[in-house]
Amino acid sequence: MGVKLGILGLGTVGTGTVQLLQDLQGRHPLLQEVEICRIGVRSPNKSRPVNLPQEILSGDLSAIVNDPQIDIIVELMGGLEPARTLIMTAIENGKHVVTANKAVISRFGEEIFTAANASGVYVMFEAAVAGGIPVIKTLKQSLSVNKLHSIIGIVNGTTNYILTRMQTEGSELEEVLADAQRLGYAEADPTADIDGLDAGDKIAILASLGFGERINLQDVYCEGIRQITKTDIAYAGKLGFVIKLLAIAKNQTGDKSQLSVRVHPTLVSQTHPLASINGVYNAILVEGEPIGQVMFFGPGAGAGPTGSAVCSDILNLVATIKTNTAQANPLLSCRHKEYCHIAPISQLVTRFYARFLTKDHPGVIGKLGTCFGKYQVSLESVVQTGFQGEMAEIVVVTHDVKEGDFRQSLEEIHTMEAIDSIPSILRVL
Amino acid sequence: MGVKLGILGLGTVGTGTVQLLQDLQGRHPLLQEVEICRIGVRSPNKSRPVNLPQEILSGDLSAIVNDPQIDIIVELMGGLEPARTLIMTAIENGKHVVTANKAVISRFGEEIFTAANASGVYVMFEAAVAGGIPVIKTLKQSLSVNKLHSIIGIVNGTTNYILTRMQTEGSELEEVLADAQRLGYAEADPTADIDGLDAGDKIAILASLGFGERINLQDVYCEGIRQITKTDIAYAGKLGFVIKLLAIAKNQTGDKSQLSVRVHPTLVSQTHPLASINGVYNAILVEGEPIGQVMFFGPGAGAGPTGSAVCSDILNLVATIKTNTAQANPLLSCRHKEYCHIAPISQLVTRFYARFLTKDHPGVIGKLGTCFGKYQVSLESVVQTGFQGEMAEIVVVTHDVKEGDFRQSLEEIHTMEAIDSIPSILRVL
Repeated sequence: MGVKLGILGLGTVGTGTVQLLQDLQGRHPLLQEVEICRIGVRSPNKSRPVNLPQEILSGDLSAIVNDPQIDIIVELMGGLEPARTLIMTAIENGKHVVTANKAVISRFGEEIFTAANASGVYVMFEAAVAGGIPVIKTLKQSLSVNKLHSIIGIVNGTTNYILTRMQTEGSELEEVLADAQRLGYAEADPTADIDGLDAGDKIAILASLGFGERINLQDVYCEGIRQITKTDIAYAGKLGFVIKLLAIAKNQTGDKSQLSVRVHPTLVSQTHPLASINGVYNAILVEGEPIGQVMFFGPGAGAGPTGSAVCSDILNLVATIKTNTAQANPLLSCRHKEYCHIAPISQLVTRFYARFLTKDHPGVIGKLGTCFGKYQVSLESVVQTGFQGEMAEIVVVTHDVKEGDFRQSLEEIHTMEAIDSIPSILRVL
Repeated sequence: MGVKLGILGLGTVGTGTVQLLQDLQGRHPLLQEVEICRIGVRSPNKSRPVNLPQEILSGDLSAIVNDPQIDIIVELMGGLEPARTLIMTAIENGKHVVTANKAVISRFGEEIFTAANASGVYVMFEAAVAGGIPVIKTLKQSLSVNKLHSIIGIVNGTTNYILTRMQTEGSELEEVLADAQRLGYAEADPTADIDGLDAGDKIAILASLGFGERINLQDVYCEGIRQITKTDIAYAGKLGFVIKLLAIAKNQTGDKSQLSVRVHPTLVSQTHPLASINGVYNAILVEGEPIGQVMFFGPGAGAGPTGSAVCSDILNLVATIKTNTAQANPLLSCRHKEYCHIAPISQLVTRFYARFLTKDHPGVIGKLGTCFGKYQVSLESVVQTGFQGEMAEIVVVTHDVKEGDFRQSLEEIHTMEAIDSIPSILRVL
C-alpha cells in the first residue's frame, strides 16, 4: 500500500517537490511508495511547469487536510494563515506533516508539537532552515549527543548575497538591493530578510533543537543590515574582517539560563570558515563537546535544494510508516517541555567595532579612552582612519565587553562636545 | 529497561565514547537509557584514563559478543581480525552493532549486512568515515532522495596535515612526515594513510551509500602522496591550485556502469571549497540533482569527534529499540543487492598536470604538442618554467582527456630523445 500525500501549495518549493517525486530513477527506492494524491492551490486552472492530472488539483485546501485517505500533509504555502490552521487540522486528523514554513514553526511550535505528540504523528521541517542543507535531522539525530556551545549560521541568502556584492563591488546597500530585487534574489518587500526577521525565525528553530528547549521568538534579538555602509565594509576589510549577517545561539556559561539567541551583522575574521560563504549560499557552524567544530554548507533556497529537503522528510516518514512502530520514535517527535530563558542583549559579552565622527579636537582619543575605561570597556585598537569633510573619523575595536556597559559608555560619549556622531556600531565574532 | 552495551576496545575512540556516556548532563536524554555492561580489552588490569568498575573490564571478548543480556556491541578495536569475527558472532546472536571500523566494513560489507538483515539487526558505522562529521546518516537518510553526481572528500587527516604543511612551509614530504609521526598525527607505519588505502576504504563506503550498490574494494584506484614534491606544490600554486589527496566517487554519465571510484593527489583550484580545508580537518562535498552542492566539514579523527559519531549511532539504535518496530527500518538497514560496475582508471576523463624534464633542444615543445595531438590530448597550457641543472623544465596542463589516451601519449613521449624524465603526473579537479 502506497503512502498518500496531500500537498498544499504549488509555488517554487511545491513545484520542486513534485518534480523530484515524478522522476524517481536513481533516487531512494522507498520514494516509490509515495503517491501524490491531492494538491491544494489557489488557482486550480492555472498552467503549471509540472504535468499533473487535472483532478489532483483542488482549490479546497480544507478538504485535503480532512481527507481520510491522506497519510501525510506537505505544507508548502508559507505565511502564517491559513497554513497554521491547516497544519493543526491535519494533526488532529492523525496525519503526519511536512512543512517548509519557518514562520509557523518558530511562532507556533508549542501548539503544533504538543498536538502532534498527542495525536501520535510527526511534524517534520527540514526545509524550514537553510534550504537543502540537512541540518535539522543532523541536529536532532546526530549532534544531540554533544553538549553544544554554539550554533552560528548564515541562514539568509538574500542578505548574504547583498553583503557579498557590497563587499566585492564596493557598492551601497540600496543599489545592490534594487538589483537583487530585479534578479529575484530579494522580494519586493524585503523587510523580513533585510531586517533579520527571517534569520530570527531560523535561529529560533535551530536553537530549540540544539539546546533542547523551546525558544520564545520574542526573546530573539534581531538586527538587520540596513545600517551597513560601504565605508564600514571597507574599514572591516582593512582590519581583516568581512561583515556577515550571523544568526547565533550560544551557551556562554554552560548554563542554559545564559543562552543568547540573536541575529545581527557581525565582523567575522577573514580566516574564519564562515567568512568565505558568499552569495546566496548558507552555512551553519556547530560547536560542541566533544565533537569540536563542524560546518555544513550549501544552497539556502531554491526549488531544487528545498524540494530535496522536503522529500527527505517524506522519505523518513515513509520509512517510519512502513516499520509500523508501536511507540513514537523519540528522534522524530519533539521532546521539548519548557522554554529556555534567554539572556537579554544587554547581558551579551562580545567584542565591538564602532566608528565615530569627531570634531578634530586635540585629545579626543584620550577622552574616548577615558570614558570607555569608566565603564570597564577595554580597547583592542583605536585608529584615526581619516577625515570626512571637517570631521575626523575614528574606528574603535574593543575586547570582550558586556553589551550593557558598552552602550552606557556610548551614551556618555554621545554627550561629548567633540563627538559629532556614531555612524556605526557592530559586534565582532 | 536500559539498553545494554558491550564495548570492544578501549583505545582512543573507546575512551572518548565511554567519557561521553559517563557525563550525560546536557546531552540527548535518551542516552540515559544506555548502560555500559561490559568492556573487552587486551589488558584488563592496565590503568585507564576513565573510571570504571573493575568487573566491567574483561579480556574475553568472545564472551561479550555471546553474552545474552547485551543488546548492542560497540566494536572499537580496529583491524580486520578478530574484529570481523566478533562482529559476525554478535550479529548471529541478534545484537545490533556499532563500529568505527572502515577496513572491516569496506571489505566485508556483503557478509556483514546480509547477516544483519537476516538477523533483523542493524550495523551502524557513522564513525568509520570522517570522524565527527555526520556524513553516513546524512547520505542514507537525507541526501538519498537526490540523484548523486559525485562525492568528493578529504577523508584522511594525516595526508591533509602533511600536504598543508608542505604547502605552507615549502618542505618536502619526508621532513613533514617525520615531524607528523613525532607529533602523533601519523603512525609509525604510515603506509595506509600515505598510500591512500585508508581513504580508499572510506570512499568505497561513501560510494556504496551514495550510489546505492556495493563497491568491490579491489576496483577502487588508490594512489597516495609519496611522489608529491615541494616543486609540484609550488608550480601548482603558481597555476592557481593547491594539491589535495581527494577521494572521489563520480557518476560521470549518469549511468551506474560508469561509476568512477578513486583516490589520488589532485590539483584543486584555490577558489574551490575543498582548497581551504587544511590540517587534520576532513570535508565531504556532495553534488546531486536537485540539491546542487552541499559540503560538510569537521574534525576527521580524535577521541572526541569519533566518540560523538559512535554515540550518535548508539542514540539511533536506542531510539529504534524503544519504538519496538514490527518491521526493519529501511533507512537503517542496508538495501544493497548488487555490486556496482566501476570503470577502470584508463576510462577516466579528467584534466592532467604533468611536469617534464627535457634536454634543451629547440622544438621540444612542438614535439610534445604533436605527440599529444596524435592521442587526442588537447592542451590548456604548456609553460617552460625554468631549468633544473642542464635540463629545461616544462609543465603541461591538459583539457579533459581520457586517461588511457593520455598514458599512451606519455609512453611515446618517454621514448623521445629530448625527454629526460617525467617527474610528476597529477590529475586536476
